[in-house]
This record gives sequence, structure tokens and C-alpha cells, in this order.
Amino acid sequence: MISETLRAELRAALPPETFVEGDALAGRAAGWSRRDGIQAALLARPASTDEVAAVLRICHAHRQPVITHGGLTGLVHGADTTPSDLVLSTERLRAIESIDPAQRVAVVQSGVTLQAVQEAADAQGLAFPLDLGSRGSATIGGNASTNAGGNRVVRYGMTRDMILGVEAVLADGTVIPAMNRLIKNNAGYDLKHLFIGSEGTLGVITRLVLRLREKPARQDVAMVAVPGFDEIVALLKHMDRALGGSLSAFEAMWPEFYELVTTPPAKGRPPVPHGHPLYALIECSGGGSPADAERFSSALEQAMEQGLVADAAIAQSQAEAAAIWALRDDVGQTMRDSPPVTFDVSLPIDRMPGYLDEVRPALAKRFPGSLLWVFGHLGDGNLHLVLKPAMPASQARPDAEAIVYSALRALGGSVSAEHGIGFEKKAWLDVSRSPAEIELMRSLKACLDPQGILNPGRIFSL
Amino acid sequence: MISETLRAELRAALPPETFVEGDALAGRAAGWSRRDGIQAALLARPASTDEVAAVLRICHAHRQPVITHGGLTGLVHGADTTPSDLVLSTERLRAIESIDPAQRVAVVQSGVTLQAVQEAADAQGLAFPLDLGSRGSATIGGNASTNAGGNRVVRYGMTRDMILGVEAVLADGTVIPAMNRLIKNNAGYDLKHLFIGSEGTLGVITRLVLRLREKPARQDVAMVAVPGFDEIVALLKHMDRALGGSLSAFEAMWPEFYELVTTPPAKGRPPVPHGHPLYALIECSGGGSPADAERFSSALEQAMEQGLVADAAIAQSQAEAAAIWALRDDVGQTMRDSPPVTFDVSLPIDRMPGYLDEVRPALAKRFPGSLLWVFGHLGDGNLHLVLKPAMPASQARPDAEAIVYSALRALGGSVSAEHGIGFEKKAWLDVSRSPAEIELMRSLKACLDPQGILNPGRIFSL
Repeated sequence: MISETLRAELRAALPPETFVEGDALAGRAAGWSRRDGIQAALLARPASTDEVAAVLRICHAHRQPVITHGGLTGLVHGADTTPSDLVLSTERLRAIESIDPAQRVAVVQSGVTLQAVQEAADAQGLAFPLDLGSRGSATIGGNASTNAGGNRVVRYGMTRDMILGVEAVLADGTVIPAMNRLIKNNAGYDLKHLFIGSEGTLGVITRLVLRLREKPARQDVAMVAVPGFDEIVALLKHMDRALGGSLSAFEAMWPEFYELVTTPPAKGRPPVPHGHPLYALIECSGGGSPADAERFSSALEQAMEQGLVADAAIAQSQAEAAAIWALRDDVGQTMRDSPPVTFDVSLPIDRMPGYLDEVRPALAKRFPGSLLWVFGHLGDGNLHLVLKPAMPASQARPDAEAIVYSALRALGGSVSAEHGIGFEKKAWLDVSRSPAEIELMRSLKACLDPQGILNPGRIFSL
Repeated sequence: MISETLRAELRAALPPETFVEGDALAGRAAGWSRRDGIQAALLARPASTDEVAAVLRICHAHRQPVITHGGLTGLVHGADTTPSDLVLSTERLRAIESIDPAQRVAVVQSGVTLQAVQEAADAQGLAFPLDLGSRGSATIGGNASTNAGGNRVVRYGMTRDMILGVEAVLADGTVIPAMNRLIKNNAGYDLKHLFIGSEGTLGVITRLVLRLREKPARQDVAMVAVPGFDEIVALLKHMDRALGGSLSAFEAMWPEFYELVTTPPAKGRPPVPHGHPLYALIECSGGGSPADAERFSSALEQAMEQGLVADAAIAQSQAEAAAIWALRDDVGQTMRDSPPVTFDVSLPIDRMPGYLDEVRPALAKRFPGSLLWVFGHLGDGNLHLVLKPAMPASQARPDAEAIVYSALRALGGSVSAEHGIGFEKKAWLDVSRSPAEIELMRSLKACLDPQGILNPGRIFSL
């Protein structure tokens, strides 16, 4: 528990509205899909960088573990707490400080939601191209800490690629004001990369400079049926080449998933008929020239002539495009009856068929009567596997993990393409990282957080 | 000097062809435009990662400074040596290990030249989009260590954005095999960013996984005259928006530079007449559809209608496109009579007119009779300033630096957009980085290279 001395020091340094405890704290949900409350000795809600620094300085002196909370939409239990933890919530760091349409940057505090960033950019004719289902709750600080991915990585990269600068507070309260606003800045080490994707273990991000893009004036969307895996790889390359930089999504679906989301009780209807080996959702985001639609459809026609596409439905309206996207997004169908076991892996594209040929029968054998749905961001090598076992998911998880993750080891695959490691995947980190890499991660942790107070135990143990 | 013990240990651990010394060493040029020879006690040319590790392990035990040499095309004196240094050259790490057209990655050793990488990708219908004038000599390891920029950053980013994984050897000989091949891999800290852009001070890069792109099938290029600075900013935004991801270069030239490279004795001729306030070279790289050219010219027509372009010459052939690019690349004109003083800075785009209004008269006053040429990658906020003073460049440099760099301080500008810091800009690092950032850089250096043997004294002093 938190000592009375520490509590008193915090209360002396920060205004009373900073703190939440007791019933008010226990009444807060521990995550967006969870019924249990936050377990912690105290929750601090600093309202400025200086206040974040004050909390950390005091906790550092007392060796008090501090767990940072953003929107609590993480998927790897990185924000889980214990009754003796202090939670640092970014919920009062909600300012969008500026949007600069000429420089095309936004300066925001880390507790701003992704959706608020998107809307503020949109209002200036710009776009912040990161997008995720949890956009309304997820904070940009959390997106940065976990290097979130999403649907448009093939065009715009991960969150890391959309961040120009960060301000972060180290464990001892030192503020690192690396608020670079420039696309090119080779003046010494690029320190922001320490804080992006390190899941809050090296510092608390308080402010960010985000790179904005011109808003695409037009989107063309198609759902296509593909005769086989070699063809879908060739199709990805063909569309990427033909669209010359405008390809903005390439999402693959294996038949079981496509059929699930286009068969009642799911609301979706199949834009192309069932019965094909693979399906792809393809999106092109262009400048709005009438030539865009023509280029998109002629690229698809060429693909059909080359035998890369068996059937195609091109959306003829925004409503049709939205209906196609709704299929990809209807992951809720996998959770219809009971919670499934979900995986977020990546691997070299040419290894995917062999990987699925290994994992699919192994899962079927271990979990008789189970279902397996596969879909993902093929353009980025990222697959989501969703297993619905005939037993409670929590009971199936350990053996399912062993099957899904172990097979990645020989393929140079990743146990976490976009969700991070947290506590959930910690035991499997060594599938994707060598002992020397993990040792270097430990050295960095010891260098930046020598007491080990920031999100301790996530990713790896000290 | 290197002790006999150290020399003997190195010779015992590595084959004789590893070493160059004496006259053979002194006869090697210290850099591509330099007449002086390399000063060093010994040059080691390891032929494998293990041999690099052996050199470093031994030097670490003896606290022997090691300076890594790639193609020696750096522009900030980062590869300068003293007679007591040991040089580690990557010249025998020349293997292109594999090119994978499906995964679109190349695996190469760090001593491969940029041009060799470009050509190997091209042979597979792919492109490695980094490009620099020194492509024939510069090594990919050097490009990575300095996070090189170039002409197509607006579309593809810096070298950092084109690297998926690196293998690096730490000062003590530990090999960090972070050879990730995946676009998405959030399994723990992304360690490659420690080695990219840190100018060889944190480790020696030995191998890399490079991200390749589909080769653009067609390029459209124009030189346009622009009526003013507000218009060129609006033009950049307009073209970026209209071309929907296909804009691949946007290079600005102020009139003095445009006139220099289009007036005899320069070989270039002006595609649009002299007499305008600004000029821009615009390039679009597309998929080869006939609609590409139409979209490019109609986007430029719209810009003319909006008053953003006063005159435009669209290349009608590859030869005309090459002639337009040759103007931008004819930086040699600034070196015609005597060496100039060149600067590579970046700053927020809306601050550029004010910055030039401050710097231009200050330089003219301090250096009567001098000339100043300005051009740069406007899409990235990167300006090159070239001063030709009426005195030797070496004599003018200190005061010119004070004028050019000091004015960046208040603007959040960078003293090094793409060239790095090395020794040359070390004294000015604090213009672009805060004391807390520089202190954190020092902590990282101490963590990864506790003896301080790797490229010591570059970027900052310990």
C-alpha cells in the first residue's frame, strides 16, 4: 500500500481534485469490456506536464510503482493494476493546443482521444490517418505508447510514423521536451522513438506533435474474390503498383470469416458470392479527380484478365463503400455467443499459407468442435486469428497460444503485430526477440527508470 | 597510439588481410572531396559480423577508440580521425544477401553502396526509394547511421522509414540481431531506432533489412514559376491533395539559384523564364495509367486558375524530365570558382520568409560582396543555404554559422535537417535540442558504450 508519508507529499504538491480513491476509484471499470473495477491505492489525474512531473518525482523518491492509464482500450492487459499501485491517468490532459494547416501538424496533450484528433484535423481540411475501432475512447498517448496500427498502415504507416515529436516525463520527473515539429531533423538522437511503442515503461508521454496529411477527396472501395494465395499476393503488388501511392487499405479475409459476416444473423450481405478461396477489401484514396475511379476499375479489370481476381464488386456510392467496410469491421460476430480467443500476429507474406496449414489442423485437433476465423491487414503481413473453442476461452487460451505462437518462431514472425506485449504476451516475447535484444531492452529500462517504477513487469521482467 | 599488445591481439583474432596500415593507409583519401589521407594507427576491414564483433571486443577491453568508415561521403566531418584512432571500415561487408519480391524486402550487409541496393531492387521490378548524389560511394550502413534524406522524403520518408531491421554490434562486441522483416512488429522496444541516425556512436551496423516498394511505372515532372511564398505553400498543399499519394518531389528554388543553374556557363536552360519570385520542381510518380499525365496537368491547370502558378513547363519526354532534374542537381555551380559555405537547415514552413528576411541582410552586411543561393526540399521544410563570401570559406564559416544557426533558435528549427551533427555542428546542437534532451543522449551513450570508444566526440562531448 501507499504509505501515509507518500500520500501526504502528493497532497501537498498537487490540488485536491487531482486524486480519486476509495469507492470512487473502485467504481471505475478496469477496461472498456470489463466489469471489474480499478484496483489501486490511489489514482492521480495531473492536469499539466508539471503536475505529471511532480507525481513522478515524489513516487520515484518513494520507489512507488506508477501505472499510466489512457483510454483503457488496450488488448494485452498492459494497464492492469494491483491494490498497491498508484494509477496516473491522463484524463485531464485533454487540450488540442494547435492545428497548423501550413506545416500540417497538430500539437496535443496525450489524454486527447483519437477521435478528437481526427475531428480537429478534419475541420482544417486535413486528416490524421490513424484509425481504430476504439477511436472514441483510446487516447493519442496510448496509441503512441503502444504504436497502434489499424487499417491504413499500408499507406501511412503505424502511429510511430505519424508522430514528429513527443514530450515525455521520465521516472524521476525529468521532462524531455522533444517536441520536434519538423519532418527532417537529424540533430542528434531521435529520442521520441524511446517512448513510442515502449508501453509506458520508459516514460509518460504528456504532449505530442502529430503529422497531419491532406484529406483524401475521394475513396474507391471494392470487395473482390481471389482464386488462391499466390494470386492475392500478386494482386496486392499489382494494385499497389497500378495505384501509384493511392492504395490505402488491402484487407484479406479467409472464407470462414467472410461467410460469418455475410450470413444471418450478421446484418451484412455478400457483395460477391460465397465459394471462393479468399476475399480482399481494397481501398484507394485519391485526390478527387474523375480519373481516380477509372484508374481503380481499370486496375481491377487488368487483375481479372491476369486471373488474379475471380469476381469483384466495386462500391458505387459512399453507402456501398461503408457497407463493404462494415463487413471487415463486424468482428463482433466472432463474439456472438461467447468470448473467443483472439490473436494478432505478423509473418512474412509468403509464409502465411504454410503457417495456416500448420496451425489450423493443430488447433482443430486440440480443440475439437472449435471454429477458426482468419482475416487481417495483408498489405502489412498482419493476420488476426480468432478461435472459438467448445470450452471457455480462458481455459483454452494457454494451449491455443502455444500452438499459434510457437509456429511463428521458425518463420521470423511476431507474436504482436500491433497490440503490444503487456502482461498477456510477455511469456512469448522470446519467440520474436532474441536474448540479446531482450537484454538490451532491460539495459534501456535500467538506464531510464533505474527504480523500475513505470508500468513494472510489462513486456519483460527485470 | 595503439599498443603492441592490442595490435597483437587483433592480429591473433583476425586474418592478415583484415588490416591496412602505414603508407597504404595514409594513401587513402580521408573523404570523397578531400586531398588529405586517412590519419589512423590502423584500419581494420572485417569481413563478417563475427569479425566486427571481434574487433570491437578487443578494442573495448583496451579502451581503444574506434571510428567506423562507410563510403566517406558524409558532410559534417563525422568520419574524421586522429593518428591514434583505429578505423573500422565496412568495405568488405558487401553482400546483398537476398531480395524478396513478395515480402518486398532486401537483406544486405552495411558496406553495400546505395546504388548497388537500388540496382538490385530494380532488377526485381522494385525500388529502394532513397536517392542522393553520392549514391555510387555512400554505403547503406552510412545512410542508416546518418538517417539520410534526399529528394523523395515527401513521399517515402527518410532512411529510417525505409529500414525494417538492423543487426548492430555494440561497443563491447555484443551482437544485437534486430533483423525484423515485418512492417508491423510491436513485440517490445523497437531497438533499431537506437542505431539509425545516431552516427555510429551507439553501435556498428553490420546488416540491414530494407523495405522495398513497387517501382513507379511513370514519372511526370514540371518546373513552375510561383508568384510568392504564400502561393508556393498553397501549391504544395494543392498538389499533394490533388495527386492523392503520388507526389514524389516538391523542390523549391529561390531566383538566385534558379538563375545560376540556367545561365551560362551552367549548361542548363530555363524551362520557364527568369523574373519570378520563386520556382518549384514538382514530380509525380504513378502507376503508368494514361490517366496519370492527365491528372498531373489538370492539377497544374487548377493551380494556375487559382493564381498559385504563374508559368509552367511540363516535361514531354524522359529527356526533358531529366533536364529539369539536372537543374536542381547542378549544385556544382555554387562551387565553380571557390568552395562555398553550405548549410542544411529545417524550419516550420510558415517561418521561412521571416527567417530568410532576417538571415539574408545579416549575411550581406557581414560578408559584403557575397552571394547567397537558397533552394531545398520544401515539402519537408528543409532549406539549403549556400553562401559564397568574398573571402576563403573556412574563414567565413564561423560568423556565417552564427548568423544562420542562431536565427533558428526561436523558430524551433534544426541546424541539421539531413546531414547529421558530426564534429561540424556539435557546437550548435543546443539550438535544436534542449539540455534535457542532450543529457538523455549522454545517458544512452553511457548505457550502450560505457567506455565511450565508438566515434567518440561526435554529436556531443561526454
